[in-house]
Amino acid sequence: MTSTTTSTASDPRGIPRGTADPTGPIPVPAAGAPRLDVDAVAEALLGDWAELRRAARERARSSALHRPLDATVAEHRARVFEQLQTLADARVSLPMLPESLGGPNDNGGNVASFEELVLADPSLQIKAGVQWGLFTSAILQLGTEEHHRAWIPDAMSLALPGAFAMTEIGHGSDVQSLATTATYDEATEEWVIHTPFRAAWKDYLGNAAIHARAATVFARLITRGVDHGVHCFFVPVRDADGELLPGVRSEDDGPKGGLNGIDNGRLAFDHVRVPRTNLLNRYGDVAPDGTYSSPIDSPGRRFFTMIGTLVQGRVSLDGSAIRASQLALHIAITYASQRRQFTAASPTEETVLLDYQSHLARLLPKLAATYAGAFAHEELLHAFDDVFSGRGDTPEAREDLETLAAALKPTSTRLALDTIQECREACGGAGFMAENRLVGLHQDLDVYATFEGDNTILLQLVAKRLLTDYRQELRSIDRAGIGRFIAQRADTLARRHTPWHRLVQTATDAGRAERSSQSLRDAEFQEALLADRARVKVEEVALALRPAGRQSPADAAALVNKHQIEMLDAARAHADLLRWRAFTAAIERFEDEGTRAVLTDLRDLFGLSLVQADLAWFLLDGMLSAQRGRQVAAEVRRLLWRLRPHALDLVAAFDLAPEHVRAPIALGGEARRQEEAAAYFRAQRASTDSPLSEKVLRDAAKEAAREEARRAAKR
Amino acid sequence: MTSTTTSTASDPRGIPRGTADPTGPIPVPAAGAPRLDVDAVAEALLGDWAELRRAARERARSSALHRPLDATVAEHRARVFEQLQTLADARVSLPMLPESLGGPNDNGGNVASFEELVLADPSLQIKAGVQWGLFTSAILQLGTEEHHRAWIPDAMSLALPGAFAMTEIGHGSDVQSLATTATYDEATEEWVIHTPFRAAWKDYLGNAAIHARAATVFARLITRGVDHGVHCFFVPVRDADGELLPGVRSEDDGPKGGLNGIDNGRLAFDHVRVPRTNLLNRYGDVAPDGTYSSPIDSPGRRFFTMIGTLVQGRVSLDGSAIRASQLALHIAITYASQRRQFTAASPTEETVLLDYQSHLARLLPKLAATYAGAFAHEELLHAFDDVFSGRGDTPEAREDLETLAAALKPTSTRLALDTIQECREACGGAGFMAENRLVGLHQDLDVYATFEGDNTILLQLVAKRLLTDYRQELRSIDRAGIGRFIAQRADTLARRHTPWHRLVQTATDAGRAERSSQSLRDAEFQEALLADRARVKVEEVALALRPAGRQSPADAAALVNKHQIEMLDAARAHADLLRWRAFTAAIERFEDEGTRAVLTDLRDLFGLSLVQADLAWFLLDGMLSAQRGRQVAAEVRRLLWRLRPHALDLVAAFDLAPEHVRAPIALGGEARRQEEAAAYFRAQRASTDSPLSEKVLRDAAKEAAREEARRAAKR
Repeated sequence: MTSTTTSTASDPRGIPRGTADPTGPIPVPAAGAPRLDVDAVAEALLGDWAELRRAARERARSSALHRPLDATVAEHRARVFEQLQTLADARVSLPMLPESLGGPNDNGGNVASFEELVLADPSLQIKAGVQWGLFTSAILQLGTEEHHRAWIPDAMSLALPGAFAMTEIGHGSDVQSLATTATYDEATEEWVIHTPFRAAWKDYLGNAAIHARAATVFARLITRGVDHGVHCFFVPVRDADGELLPGVRSEDDGPKGGLNGIDNGRLAFDHVRVPRTNLLNRYGDVAPDGTYSSPIDSPGRRFFTMIGTLVQGRVSLDGSAIRASQLALHIAITYASQRRQFTAASPTEETVLLDYQSHLARLLPKLAATYAGAFAHEELLHAFDDVFSGRGDTPEAREDLETLAAALKPTSTRLALDTIQECREACGGAGFMAENRLVGLHQDLDVYATFEGDNTILLQLVAKRLLTDYRQELRSIDRAGIGRFIAQRADTLARRHTPWHRLVQTATDAGRAERSSQSLRDAEFQEALLADRARVKVEEVALALRPAGRQSPADAAALVNKHQIEMLDAARAHADLLRWRAFTAAIERFEDEGTRAVLTDLRDLFGLSLVQADLAWFLLDGMLSAQRGRQVAAEVRRLLWRLRPHALDLVAAFDLAPEHVRAPIALGGEARRQEEAAAYFRAQRASTDSPLSEKVLRDAAKEAAREEARRAAKR
Repeated sequence: MTSTTTSTASDPRGIPRGTADPTGPIPVPAAGAPRLDVDAVAEALLGDWAELRRAARERARSSALHRPLDATVAEHRARVFEQLQTLADARVSLPMLPESLGGPNDNGGNVASFEELVLADPSLQIKAGVQWGLFTSAILQLGTEEHHRAWIPDAMSLALPGAFAMTEIGHGSDVQSLATTATYDEATEEWVIHTPFRAAWKDYLGNAAIHARAATVFARLITRGVDHGVHCFFVPVRDADGELLPGVRSEDDGPKGGLNGIDNGRLAFDHVRVPRTNLLNRYGDVAPDGTYSSPIDSPGRRFFTMIGTLVQGRVSLDGSAIRASQLALHIAITYASQRRQFTAASPTEETVLLDYQSHLARLLPKLAATYAGAFAHEELLHAFDDVFSGRGDTPEAREDLETLAAALKPTSTRLALDTIQECREACGGAGFMAENRLVGLHQDLDVYATFEGDNTILLQLVAKRLLTDYRQELRSIDRAGIGRFIAQRADTLARRHTPWHRLVQTATDAGRAERSSQSLRDAEFQEALLADRARVKVEEVALALRPAGRQSPADAAALVNKHQIEMLDAARAHADLLRWRAFTAAIERFEDEGTRAVLTDLRDLFGLSLVQADLAWFLLDGMLSAQRGRQVAAEVRRLLWRLRPHALDLVAAFDLAPEHVRAPIALGGEARRQEEAAAYFRAQRASTDSPLSEKVLRDAAKEAAREEARRAAKR
């Protein structure tokens, strides 16, 4: 529908400005311009486990699985428990089981399918994660055959709901310092599980407040007077009627900021006895006489091997954070393409929100980062599947997988929270209504930044790994070589810090804005910038920390602490680089030229937004001249407008059904209202008795008076 | 309690590392070092309406007024309505009334007292804001004596709950385009209030879903065939039994992201008739025969004058956003001073979170900005009081007040949301528990970014005002002068953009890191940087927009839109400068040297954090040399550590009682648990039969073997 009427601002019938044709054309790519092949991109985003994802999304369309908008904590919990039973009955977690337990051992597919639950209700996703991803998985990964036979069938069918009792009130991030004890009693061949003080209560455990019948409890294994560190024990906590077993205590965590469909709570044990064989003994066992044995000699490595099985949670949070970002962007970009406010470019027609530069700047860089995150997640999922299927299960592959997950989980959950909040605010008052989903998504995803490894702690792990790699690289050079290498790097760094060096670069760039702008959009140049940044940030920290080796532990710790901000920064730069590379590699796999062109613009927006956000660093480090630095913001703005016509295609490729979206503002409600308003004003204009505007009359009267004055002057 | 025990990490009894002395000393300023006079700062933060604030805070301690943690929407609404009646009975809003209505006409005090309600329940604050700040205020500000007599007493006592019916589904930000009509019928001397289509329904109105008996309805005044633009009408909507009156329709907005104690809803009117005298006629009236008259000739100015009375809402949101930030920081900084995790600096003692550099970097810059915001708010409150008391009510003062409020409200609500979220994440899992307040604060404050003027729209208003001022400044120079002025500014800008200019600056700074660092902390230098930035950003936009004057409206609008990001940026730079100046002026008013020293550090942290966040701009603009630019991050880090010992004093000065804080993690729960754990480990160490650590035994065995080997080699 295109209106042919004239300006309403100058329409003396007083029709409010800008409501003339609210259903005007939505910008689409011009004929002949590159255009996204939406189906091909959708398929690529579904990735290699597309079939399982499709089935999971089909399930997520059912209203029976959807998040309620107004429920008490108790109601929401009861509802989610029922939903979980539905999933158990449909055997949705079967892919996680190895062949020996009747499953296909499809770990990647299992996680892929699990991630899609976030579209139904994040509470359901996390409740399923607690039951199968943590509780069942602990039995599977840390236990042995007998444990699998004894408990896994019931855990899978939900006949045995369980809690994963690791975190204590006093220790969340520092698992090695947990204080719950499991002391072996040779006389009865039992473990005595005990909570020595209040801070050692297990806390924040999903299923613990109500539903758990058992728990996989992490406790210090003590036998024959020796503390062998943290191990995992299977401990029944409630009877068939849901009553707590003797010696077990539980408290309810009560209402939370979100995820209120999950009954988080606390557990404590007062000398609770379980059989010797309840130790999940894959990585450490105790003979009836109390002799401890382990296939892993070093207590440290043993601990980290056990903890390493938790990586699955991080992998799945990375994926569901990206999915939640996609949903939020679908809602906000759809609404912004329909919602109009204020007349700007046209006197007759109000402008759609997405045609405002600041609105594009709020949403499109997040869209670009979400695309990058989706492609990077697919790589993470493959790395995870390789290790957990056993195909590529080497210590090095495990370590790489853990570093990759530790880099991506914190940065994608950060992206999700920032994106959802930006989308919520970009939708104004409508964004605050629960029915439009954005507030609920933020509430539920909020704790994704904390659980399965606090974001700061994970980034620190990444930084430590990067520093270790860097030092090993140095070590691999011979003695004479090291001297040369360090001298050379120091020289490079020093040169970057001299103004003369920058000046030369600037002079070289001078007067070639066009070429300089070209090079910013050059993939190799972006890669060089981002890779150099990631490397130099590690290098700089490594150089700064060199004295630590010769210092007392306290001084060394203080020195490390004085560079913590830079360490976290280096880890983020590393994650940025991984995502940029994953995005770039994904583009290479498309054959359609239009798709490649649009996605390359989007990748450039991602890359240059990263450069822009850290521009001062690039300038001070001498990697970008002032001349080029000044081009960055301009280039980002150009990309926003270039991508504008593709915005709806880019969210369409997320392939979300109306039952996934559910937000009325993104399902045509806004467009319908505008059509009705437009029809009303058309009828008004056609009528002769609609009111005239005082302002227009006054302006006309003034003009007439001026005209009269002019005529009088002539006479 | 200071522990005298030795390292637990090397304690062969296997006591977990780091739990040795969790109650070790919290860093306080060293003897002789500058120290904050907490009482004096608390008094200054209470400001000039301290007595009314204290009374309001005293009320806010009552649990009867507190936000429930788990309630359905219906329960929460009922509760807040009861609480509102309590406030009405206590006549808390009396200060807003002029002497003619029996009040003291203390507008500043009224808003100050209202802001403190955010400590009890933001829903209660906003419900009170709807009833008295919007509905009653519209009658007071837009109506005349007869209206005041007729409705204000009942509105004050809550005998007449009301809605403020301005926003429509189709138009929130663009109030001038509202579509509801009020057509005068001379025959009956009545207004016919009508909603012509769905998008013209009034929406998001507090009190509209259930409680409102009347509404102040904004509608296009049409009489004798002329549309005089938007005016405000008093329209009864429900009878004494709460039933909707004939022709009035209402819908419930349902659950929201927060503020669920308020019954937001929609209202529509199907040819609803009200008497002629229900027009709130201070700025426009209609005689019985339908003749329109107004004291303000220009329809545009008339509209903005009416809308200008809404500034009170923005003023109060600025204040309550700052108060909410203070509460969040009190909780997170208190917890971070007690919570310990990981051993770092000491092998025996875990480190408190606030001693980690990254934790300081998360919280202290927000603390600094919150201080700046509090002092700036006090200035805003005075500007508001001057105008609304009538003492300084000039058009210029009103315009300045509106610009000031439009600059501060969006930036302080942004600060509050970012601060609360940062605090929530900094408290880990505990931060996600509803009882610890942070998630609820974020949920409730979320929409503060949207209502009472969307943040983006308000910043745009500020930018327009700054551009207008800039152009007027140019106009005040004579013709020849303009040429000189523009040439000179262009020259300055151009010189800044040449590398040679920067080089000279850099060379001058070279080798004087000490002095360069001094100057960053120099107040005049910070002021120069921030003021120059605010000015140059406006200048650059103004120069870029100069062609608009000669362009078609469409082209001009497109040009403006292409610089929207920079306009918003200029507005933010202006708000930053206002806050920095307010902070600096406030420091001058303290006499105590220690207080001045600590607050100056905090002000420097605020100023340099602003510079750091926009560092690329300062570098590219040539305002900072690379040499100095590199000092900024280092100086910020130094300030974090300098301020570390004062962190608890700085939050103590917020003067929040335990009944305001309520979060168990900030009320000693964490400290008590740690004491208990420490006592347990002391007892263990005193005992001879506590378990030995495998790791320590292994290390000892290895060491013994090495020793044996050394001895064997000697033999």
